[in-house]
Amino acid sequence: MIRSVRGLLFMLAIIAGCTLLPMNFCKSANADDAAPTFQDVASSIYGQAVGDDDDGTMYVFGLTARYTGPDRVLPGEGKFKNIFNYLPVTALYYNPDDYYVSTQKVEGEFKSDECVLCHSIQTPRIVVDWKASKHSKGGKTAAMKAEQVVGCDACHGNNHQELTMPSVTTCGKCHAKEKREHLSGGQGSHGSHTIWDISVTEFAWQIGKPAEEVAGCAQCHGIAGNRCDGCHTRHQFKPSEARKPDTCGVCHMGVDHAEYEFWYNSFHGKIYMMEGDTWDWDKKMTPKNYRTPTCAYCHIGEDGNHNVQHMSTDYAHMGMFQLDRGAPQHKAKRDGWIKRCQGCHSPRFAAEQLYAMDEQIHISFTKWREAVGVIVGLYLEGLFDPMPADLAPDYTGGHTMNLLPGGAPRFYNVSNIERLAVEMIVYQVTGVYKAAAHFSTDDVTYNAGAFVMDRQLVKIKDEASKLRRISTLEKEVGIEHQAFDFWKHGEYTDLLTGYKRQEGDIVEDACDHGDHPCFGEEH
Amino acid sequence: MIRSVRGLLFMLAIIAGCTLLPMNFCKSANADDAAPTFQDVASSIYGQAVGDDDDGTMYVFGLTARYTGPDRVLPGEGKFKNIFNYLPVTALYYNPDDYYVSTQKVEGEFKSDECVLCHSIQTPRIVVDWKASKHSKGGKTAAMKAEQVVGCDACHGNNHQELTMPSVTTCGKCHAKEKREHLSGGQGSHGSHTIWDISVTEFAWQIGKPAEEVAGCAQCHGIAGNRCDGCHTRHQFKPSEARKPDTCGVCHMGVDHAEYEFWYNSFHGKIYMMEGDTWDWDKKMTPKNYRTPTCAYCHIGEDGNHNVQHMSTDYAHMGMFQLDRGAPQHKAKRDGWIKRCQGCHSPRFAAEQLYAMDEQIHISFTKWREAVGVIVGLYLEGLFDPMPADLAPDYTGGHTMNLLPGGAPRFYNVSNIERLAVEMIVYQVTGVYKAAAHFSTDDVTYNAGAFVMDRQLVKIKDEASKLRRISTLEKEVGIEHQAFDFWKHGEYTDLLTGYKRQEGDIVEDACDHGDHPCFGEEH
Amino acid sequence: MIRSVRGLLFMLAIIAGCTLLPMNFCKSANADDAAPTFQDVASSIYGQAVGDDDDGTMYVFGLTARYTGPDRVLPGEGKFKNIFNYLPVTALYYNPDDYYVSTQKVEGEFKSDECVLCHSIQTPRIVVDWKASKHSKGGKTAAMKAEQVVGCDACHGNNHQELTMPSVTTCGKCHAKEKREHLSGGQGSHGSHTIWDISVTEFAWQIGKPAEEVAGCAQCHGIAGNRCDGCHTRHQFKPSEARKPDTCGVCHMGVDHAEYEFWYNSFHGKIYMMEGDTWDWDKKMTPKNYRTPTCAYCHIGEDGNHNVQHMSTDYAHMGMFQLDRGAPQHKAKRDGWIKRCQGCHSPRFAAEQLYAMDEQIHISFTKWREAVGVIVGLYLEGLFDPMPADLAPDYTGGHTMNLLPGGAPRFYNVSNIERLAVEMIVYQVTGVYKAAAHFSTDDVTYNAGAFVMDRQLVKIKDEASKLRRISTLEKEVGIEHQAFDFWKHGEYTDLLTGYKRQEGDIVEDACDHGDHPCFGEEH
Repeated sequence: MIRSVRGLLFMLAIIAGCTLLPMNFCKSANADDAAPTFQDVASSIYGQAVGDDDDGTMYVFGLTARYTGPDRVLPGEGKFKNIFNYLPVTALYYNPDDYYVSTQKVEGEFKSDECVLCHSIQTPRIVVDWKASKHSKGGKTAAMKAEQVVGCDACHGNNHQELTMPSVTTCGKCHAKEKREHLSGGQGSHGSHTIWDISVTEFAWQIGKPAEEVAGCAQCHGIAGNRCDGCHTRHQFKPSEARKPDTCGVCHMGVDHAEYEFWYNSFHGKIYMMEGDTWDWDKKMTPKNYRTPTCAYCHIGEDGNHNVQHMSTDYAHMGMFQLDRGAPQHKAKRDGWIKRCQGCHSPRFAAEQLYAMDEQIHISFTKWREAVGVIVGLYLEGLFDPMPADLAPDYTGGHTMNLLPGGAPRFYNVSNIERLAVEMIVYQVTGVYKAAAHFSTDDVTYNAGAFVMDRQLVKIKDEASKLRRISTLEKEVGIEHQAFDFWKHGEYTDLLTGYKRQEGDIVEDACDHGDHPCFGEEH
Repeated sequence: MIRSVRGLLFMLAIIAGCTLLPMNFCKSANADDAAPTFQDVASSIYGQAVGDDDDGTMYVFGLTARYTGPDRVLPGEGKFKNIFNYLPVTALYYNPDDYYVSTQKVEGEFKSDECVLCHSIQTPRIVVDWKASKHSKGGKTAAMKAEQVVGCDACHGNNHQELTMPSVTTCGKCHAKEKREHLSGGQGSHGSHTIWDISVTEFAWQIGKPAEEVAGCAQCHGIAGNRCDGCHTRHQFKPSEARKPDTCGVCHMGVDHAEYEFWYNSFHGKIYMMEGDTWDWDKKMTPKNYRTPTCAYCHIGEDGNHNVQHMSTDYAHMGMFQLDRGAPQHKAKRDGWIKRCQGCHSPRFAAEQLYAMDEQIHISFTKWREAVGVIVGLYLEGLFDPMPADLAPDYTGGHTMNLLPGGAPRFYNVSNIERLAVEMIVYQVTGVYKAAAHFSTDDVTYNAGAFVMDRQLVKIKDEASKLRRISTLEKEVGIEHQAFDFWKHGEYTDLLTGYKRQEGDIVEDACDHGDHPCFGEEH
Repeated sequence: MIRSVRGLLFMLAIIAGCTLLPMNFCKSANADDAAPTFQDVASSIYGQAVGDDDDGTMYVFGLTARYTGPDRVLPGEGKFKNIFNYLPVTALYYNPDDYYVSTQKVEGEFKSDECVLCHSIQTPRIVVDWKASKHSKGGKTAAMKAEQVVGCDACHGNNHQELTMPSVTTCGKCHAKEKREHLSGGQGSHGSHTIWDISVTEFAWQIGKPAEEVAGCAQCHGIAGNRCDGCHTRHQFKPSEARKPDTCGVCHMGVDHAEYEFWYNSFHGKIYMMEGDTWDWDKKMTPKNYRTPTCAYCHIGEDGNHNVQHMSTDYAHMGMFQLDRGAPQHKAKRDGWIKRCQGCHSPRFAAEQLYAMDEQIHISFTKWREAVGVIVGLYLEGLFDPMPADLAPDYTGGHTMNLLPGGAPRFYNVSNIERLAVEMIVYQVTGVYKAAAHFSTDDVTYNAGAFVMDRQLVKIKDEASKLRRISTLEKEVGIEHQAFDFWKHGEYTDLLTGYKRQEGDIVEDACDHGDHPCFGEEH
């Protein structure tokens, strides 16, 4: 399949006169003029024909495949509806109230018993799970007039042509307290509005990229939004499951929100690992019932309050904003945390731990400000390589530096030094806070915090030094450096939403909350 | 032990006239002329005598130790037998049919009962384990003429001077179906031939390096090759164990094959973590028996098919080659997967998830091709630092660029930008695919996929820009840059197999599959 | 909250004449002259007033907050007492013998029953735990004159104004054998003296930084020092818990001491994951009782020897020093390990595994020496950017290069290439050793070892090449490069202890072990 014809590369590339050669090697396959594309040249080297990436062919290292893009997307809504769509999987199930459309595979109206009968064959496990749930046992609750089983139809309806997927509203018909609490949190909570709309869809790393690339963002934010089965998985919906930290770990993990890993790295987590399987998870989250705190123990608490922020101090954008949570005006909340630790620890011990957290956060921000000083100094002298205007437009259509107001952090379409800065504030500064708040001391200092920020600050200064030295040399010898075109264009870069944006695309009044409610708003 | 004599460093280094000083500091200890070695100079600074690294001395930061190399290796076989050997541990146990030689510690012929008696003292745990296994219980199977216990001798023989280690062939005497299935997979499967020979020993990152450094490759590939105890660990050999995902996790983990971690990061994995210890793992892998899919649930299936590829779509080199698995010609396989999800999920839900995977893969390759375009453009202008010819020869004896046909990806003996490219295709492009295929959405976008590829693409462009700017400056002032010698030589670099290769070393016809079967071929 | 006033940035910065602008953007907020600070300029851009970081305000990306520093620290002791303090949490609980002061919240003398009564309300879980412990059951031991319960007062005293926190000495009153063993290890063991004093407080990455940043170091080192509840957590103190690997994992994890993760990645770890919850952890660590070795199985052993080094070979500074553990003079210890493996494995198998480890270590050091050669060559020509003298002073007040005698590895306040070297020896060389010693073959070669060292060596050579090329260019055009001031100063950098050091600060005779015993010394 592979022919070793390196000579061809030179020949073809040069003869064909790829307009961008050799800076970008060759034009993208999506370019519309007749010049040979990257794929054409790759084809001559690897000996495989150029084809579409959805034709089922296996392409050697993917070099001769042409990007086709998703052919099925759901329309966006709100402010950015003209430039951003969704993959079906992103919206269909993650905000069922707005997007779900029944599959209409079967006709007729069915009772729950009939559903169970057929679905024992069609999707057998959900029947097993439902049968193991309280819903199948029947009973009388405040919300129900008589003893009854909560059957399939209670959540999905009876008409198979018009099935629904349950949302917070559906579950809230019986679980009113939990619904009210779930929706009562502010920014950063699990409430559907804050999670699904604002935090995700209007942030550079989501809205600035093609829909298929950021489906993963929406998936977790959707899990925690207008649904209950993010924490109470189908079809058992067990409270005991939602009390276990692993449930939370589906989302609260990874480079910028590693609460799960940090907690696991603490004594608390290790004790859970060793004996958690012997605890009775049907019991309330009290010190007598649980040997160590878990996610739910601290953030849901003894009363099962489904507003996960009810114990928190003010939300500080995942820790990217600086806040001293030990200051006098936050005393009531701080005292609440200390009280929670008193299941095992003296108030002084708890207070000292949290004081250490405060100080660890403070010093992490000195490192961050030192880095920003170096970076902004470089920017002011026009020494970024490239400067924002030499990048693709960001999703607003403009070219704003990441660190300046209006320049929401981007992971791509940035210069190297801007990316280093984004990592420092999004991953590392937040890491110090979250590791400290979950008592993973090794991470605060070593694995995720101080020593990692050290590395980043050295990198940033080294990058600044190199850029300055090269620039000084260029000035000395009379070279006027122009950022290379590959920063602005390329097969992937050309897909960024910034390029799609036209005058008037951003619909500022799209969400008037009246006759035209926006995606995710409560109806 | 440490004397602070920095002055000595200068003195000695300069007076002694290290031939390579200061570019490479000094000659390697393995050089055979009289010039002082790196170790000699280090000795003058650290005040510790130079010695061999296997003499049992503790060397401060290892600076004054001389490399001795392994004194016991097994001969290689096949095409590369003249340039590549094996550490005993690599071959002896991992391909027992070919390499195992009995230890001959004890003389005599023994019955199983006698083995058990003595080994209750010698290696007590394997006796405990065997006694807990079905093998010790006895019974009648299709392969056995009468009721019998499968004792020690059934696998190891009776003559203690000629003990054997069991291979797939040994186990296959009774477990014929499983053996047949195990061996029936194609490239990328667990079958011994594909795993042990081709994938590993003839790839640059294995064959291009000293044997002791790549023992780890062979170990995992051996586990899955001509043995059964990679998944059914000794001496219980429990099917229930092989059904648990942790068994698979011994190999299917880490930077380029993190299926295990990705699955664990999904809802499926989290539910296993929370309640898997309460499931009955002796049962068949059906939806009724297991609440969530595991490795074996999807890849072995209800019928216990030991060809782990029987459900797969075409193998795409771990995802390094591009393939749309949703295209019409792969419909039967895709439908098979969707059917498997139907234990719990509607066909539409499953199809949408897999469609999202397809699209996530497609866009990941646009980023990869954009990177390759930048890199190859640089290569065509001769701006790599160093260019291939300024590196050590690769294992073929030549100097092929990683991305060109014939240039199998190398992790070392590459320029920085080639290494960045290797990471992108081997770690990141495969990461998007594998995370998506195992429903770790956070990883697809955030931790292992899109945003990590963003980082890499910025790095690659930044490197390309710096190399171009420096080169332009050099041309402007008339400097002709020569790659530094440290790319070609050094204590470690000089050990690469490329340097050992002589004319005729690669024996193309070594494996004629006839009279001279090669290492790992079935006899 | 955020005003988009980029223009202001230029204006204010330029008009105000920040003395360091634009190299460091502006002076730090802690500078005492009248020039505008970084925070002042940030304030003009982000529209938020400058304030103290402990005033409870939320600062947008922390840019306008002023560092205040900890207002409560405990005095240091010993050699560095004049330049290094401790956060209370670091010392108060981690070395209770020396630092603990009773909280004095309640007056009176109490019997254990009375403690229990009140603390069932105050800290209920510790009462539950104590009641589940052997201490609450009562009995007669060699150390006790009569049958008795080990009540609260046995460890904490009776006078609530003078409560004590138990140390090794306290527990040792009854557990004399364990205390003796715990304290009998040499450097690198759990003994309090080696752990708490020497290894941590007198090492560059601890003593060179502000106290709040390195609290995490002391926390783990304290856990293993003058206390027993690091491994036997309060208030159950179960031996069965200390036998489980997760207990050890609180500290033995992360970038430079990932023994826990490596073991988990081995077959041994995976088998524990799958069936460890069914084993009886109250039993002695013999092959018959445990199917796979765990941390305690190998390092504590059958006799429960609390000197975790009693099985080890010579301590080699976490593997940073080179040592062939298979050499003849270490035969007795090697044979001990092989014997331990004989629960399941033949001596030859075990020996071959350890031989592979030896060789894997040897080759890792060739790569390290090759790197050092490149780096020291660069240093000798004065091509580091910056050179040590252009950095802040290290904690000794001097400027010693990391790799030279006297230059203890620093993670910050280093040039980029020095940091790369530190990572190689501290993280990667040790990683090869620890992964091999815990049979995580995938990590030895792939994830943590050889291929990661490859990456680092390419980075180091690439950095050396860039620095040389830029320097050659500068010389050619007559530029004399001066290291930028941001390497020496900045909001964080100015906090390093090197700047605090005055003549006479280091009290060499502070620890005379006589009338003036030092912090952590046994009294």
